[in-house]
Amino acid sequence: METPEIKPPSNGSGLTLRRVAIDTWRENVAYLHRDCEVVRAEGFQALAKVEIRANGKRILATLNVVDDPCIVGQQEIGVSEDAFLQLDIAEGHPASVTQAEPPASIPALFRKINGERLGQADFRAIVADIAQRRYSKIELTAFVVASNRSELDREEVYFLTDAMVASGRRLDWHEPLVVDKHCIGGIPGNRTSMLVVPIVAAYGLVFPKTSSRAITSPAGTADTMEVLADVELPFDRLTDIVREHRGCLAWGGTADLSPADDVLISVERPLALDSPGQMVASILSKKIAAGATHLVLDIPIGPTAKVRSMPEAQRLRRLFEYVAQRLHLSLDVVITDGRQPVGRGIGPALEARDVMRVLENHPDAPDDLRQKSLRLAGRLIECSPDVRGGQGYAIARDILESGRALTRMRSIIAAQGARDFDPHHPQFGALTFQVTAQADGMVVGIDNLQVAQIARLAGAPKVKRAGVDLMCQLGDVVRQGQTLYRIHADYPSDLAFARHAVERQSGIVIGAAEQLPQVFVEF
Amino acid sequence: METPEIKPPSNGSGLTLRRVAIDTWRENVAYLHRDCEVVRAEGFQALAKVEIRANGKRILATLNVVDDPCIVGQQEIGVSEDAFLQLDIAEGHPASVTQAEPPASIPALFRKINGERLGQADFRAIVADIAQRRYSKIELTAFVVASNRSELDREEVYFLTDAMVASGRRLDWHEPLVVDKHCIGGIPGNRTSMLVVPIVAAYGLVFPKTSSRAITSPAGTADTMEVLADVELPFDRLTDIVREHRGCLAWGGTADLSPADDVLISVERPLALDSPGQMVASILSKKIAAGATHLVLDIPIGPTAKVRSMPEAQRLRRLFEYVAQRLHLSLDVVITDGRQPVGRGIGPALEARDVMRVLENHPDAPDDLRQKSLRLAGRLIECSPDVRGGQGYAIARDILESGRALTRMRSIIAAQGARDFDPHHPQFGALTFQVTAQADGMVVGIDNLQVAQIARLAGAPKVKRAGVDLMCQLGDVVRQGQTLYRIHADYPSDLAFARHAVERQSGIVIGAAEQLPQVFVEF
Repeated sequence: METPEIKPPSNGSGLTLRRVAIDTWRENVAYLHRDCEVVRAEGFQALAKVEIRANGKRILATLNVVDDPCIVGQQEIGVSEDAFLQLDIAEGHPASVTQAEPPASIPALFRKINGERLGQADFRAIVADIAQRRYSKIELTAFVVASNRSELDREEVYFLTDAMVASGRRLDWHEPLVVDKHCIGGIPGNRTSMLVVPIVAAYGLVFPKTSSRAITSPAGTADTMEVLADVELPFDRLTDIVREHRGCLAWGGTADLSPADDVLISVERPLALDSPGQMVASILSKKIAAGATHLVLDIPIGPTAKVRSMPEAQRLRRLFEYVAQRLHLSLDVVITDGRQPVGRGIGPALEARDVMRVLENHPDAPDDLRQKSLRLAGRLIECSPDVRGGQGYAIARDILESGRALTRMRSIIAAQGARDFDPHHPQFGALTFQVTAQADGMVVGIDNLQVAQIARLAGAPKVKRAGVDLMCQLGDVVRQGQTLYRIHADYPSDLAFARHAVERQSGIVIGAAEQLPQVFVEF
Repeated sequence: METPEIKPPSNGSGLTLRRVAIDTWRENVAYLHRDCEVVRAEGFQALAKVEIRANGKRILATLNVVDDPCIVGQQEIGVSEDAFLQLDIAEGHPASVTQAEPPASIPALFRKINGERLGQADFRAIVADIAQRRYSKIELTAFVVASNRSELDREEVYFLTDAMVASGRRLDWHEPLVVDKHCIGGIPGNRTSMLVVPIVAAYGLVFPKTSSRAITSPAGTADTMEVLADVELPFDRLTDIVREHRGCLAWGGTADLSPADDVLISVERPLALDSPGQMVASILSKKIAAGATHLVLDIPIGPTAKVRSMPEAQRLRRLFEYVAQRLHLSLDVVITDGRQPVGRGIGPALEARDVMRVLENHPDAPDDLRQKSLRLAGRLIECSPDVRGGQGYAIARDILESGRALTRMRSIIAAQGARDFDPHHPQFGALTFQVTAQADGMVVGIDNLQVAQIARLAGAPKVKRAGVDLMCQLGDVVRQGQTLYRIHADYPSDLAFARHAVERQSGIVIGAAEQLPQVFVEF
């Protein structure tokens, strides 16, 4: 029996880094040749989780085993595009690879899967591992599904929100009052932020609005603003713009605010998960990380909105208020009419037209969008200690009607980098299709989900000029053959997809006055 | 306004198939160049789910977007190794790719995620989609986590088992009595199947034993049998062997039995999920699909076994019995001593040595393995209508002691294809390390999990000759310095890993007689 010298376990060093031009989106993938020594020595199999170290950085990745030296050689460690960016060093640099230690929070995850209530430290650990991309998709999904439904009590929702804030950067504007607004989503059009920001910033409050791009909708605020101006701004430039103009309308993805949220969304979305706890944590963590002190939150309610009844809206409001109060955020929840889209256009360029018409006090400006924006702006202006309750709306209206809101919007657009869009002669997708009323009657239903889906099929938000231009509203009396909306597309196949969807379901119901849905709002 | 001719949506055809030599294990990956027309036309993003059609076959895959024409060109659709095998056609063949329709069972999945009880048709639909690999890892994980804990009632466990049987092939041996045995696992060594099969087959009952390879253990029956004979047999050859020799000891992966099970395991394993419902469905579906009519099921119980208390074992037994009865399987559950490994060797070659010694009635044969195997074989023999209760053990012992079991094993080995293993001069990993007692006393604890982990680190099951050779049992009185077990490895780094694990925890507890754990068994 021989007892050899014990050598330390192989550390998978002596490899050089290679960029493999494969885009795997949010998932880091490492490529090693099957005959690479570390694959043999460590008994690696495909899908193993490995840690790559290079130049003092380390990232985690999922392993794919390669048999083609053209992709990666025996002395190389290949990484996917996103992983390469994270390592931020040149090809050919020395790198090492080892089996990844499981994330430290895995025991807490297993406890959650088995139905236990977790504490603040557990959530901090889990969310930190998620933000650092230490969780596999399997582990992420397990966390999200185990936290779904009533599996999180409101204290746990607070812990989760707090942990999500702590997982990234937290902005400090060195101002006593930093305002923000947010809508829980689900209503096409509804581009109030692009009106509220210039009005409130013109009044003088700091309003550093960062928005997301569309995930499942035909346009997010960032997509629509991008028709008018650049929205992907370096963080320093963004702060300069806010300092000078009191507001901005930028994409939030570059600021590292609540980074765990983006990772969680990547699994919540395909599972259509949008539980109250996850929604509250996602929204409030982003706003708190962005430095907001006062938030107006819009919960639209309607038959095809995210929230469909007043009791449900009230439960959601209370959960938002509880968590906001624990995190010292002043929160004003408004429950608004979500029975139909707000504004006429659905799709980035069509919505940008509506926004500019309101700012320009154009006679064809959609009044619903104007009214809602003025009321939201009024609520925010009333956060200011020298404004009395009830005065905000009139102040906002004055700022809009006097043209000061338009001037402020132009300044913000110029500061962010203006794009080529002529609001007086807007161009939309040249391929069109008109949807007409099948009978005389009253418009008694507009399906938010179906209309949004048709706009997406037409190409929005990827094709900026695509979407739906609505020509009716609830309560309108229409004649057979009258145009209800027009679809715009750039590509024939997109138009065909949208038209096929219309043939199944146009999204508009014509009926009698008594069928008109009623909602009670708190606004 | 122009209303163009509506062309049908692009079908992503006109591509040629290319094999991309990347091993992504169970996940099909499709590689398309970023400038490929279908990527642009359909707005594909990385991680989209696509359907590839070629030569009348269709498979689903996850998309990776490629920027390197050396990996895949603009006119090509690249597929990972496993996906290429599934398509089963040559490179260069025409292929088309489209956005995959979501699996039809997704609404049922969403209902399960939201806590609803599902019916038989729901489980059939979900499991069929899983078996056809139509579920993403996210969807798979969501199903497994939502079905964890007490989320499945026993009727749902029956539905799940039934659906898993229906998802693949179901064998029919055209015999009134087809026996099988199974252990729920967790006990190192414990290679009883390799003794029970030749004994019971020699008695004359049909025993078509298909086993798995190790997933988290240092050896599965298939790994150990593979030391002696080929185990990956074409299905036709397997049936010929069973017909001629009444038994076989093969790997079950080639027979398409309960294919959904393998897919589910790929996410259950990393989450350490092993809920009773999932265990029952997994085990019984495989056995029923393999054509068994009578099953003896071994549930070991002990402080480091999967099942740690008698009430837990009884609950599990009742669930197994309920589902077996619904599926017309005759089931005999035995609750056995799981306080320590069974046999001496842990690792394929070491276990093969133990098995052969028992078959050869060798004086050094491990008695615990011999006794347990005889009792299990006796239970199975008593399934025969002409054997009276209580006679089985004596019949089994006679078959073993007479050498008939050894003869039968040699026939099975020869029929499957004998490998080069000399049971009289077995070779184990030449690099060794001995673990010795730190003090005088009695062996009062052997940690199944730690000993298994050490054998795995030493290289088992991938390195057949690696593992742990135990030289003590519970209750043995040892002197300080006496060898407790020996580690065998082929590679220095493996030995170093195993030794580091021993330094943290040897897995053996030396103490006083009163510390010896007791278990009550039903066997």
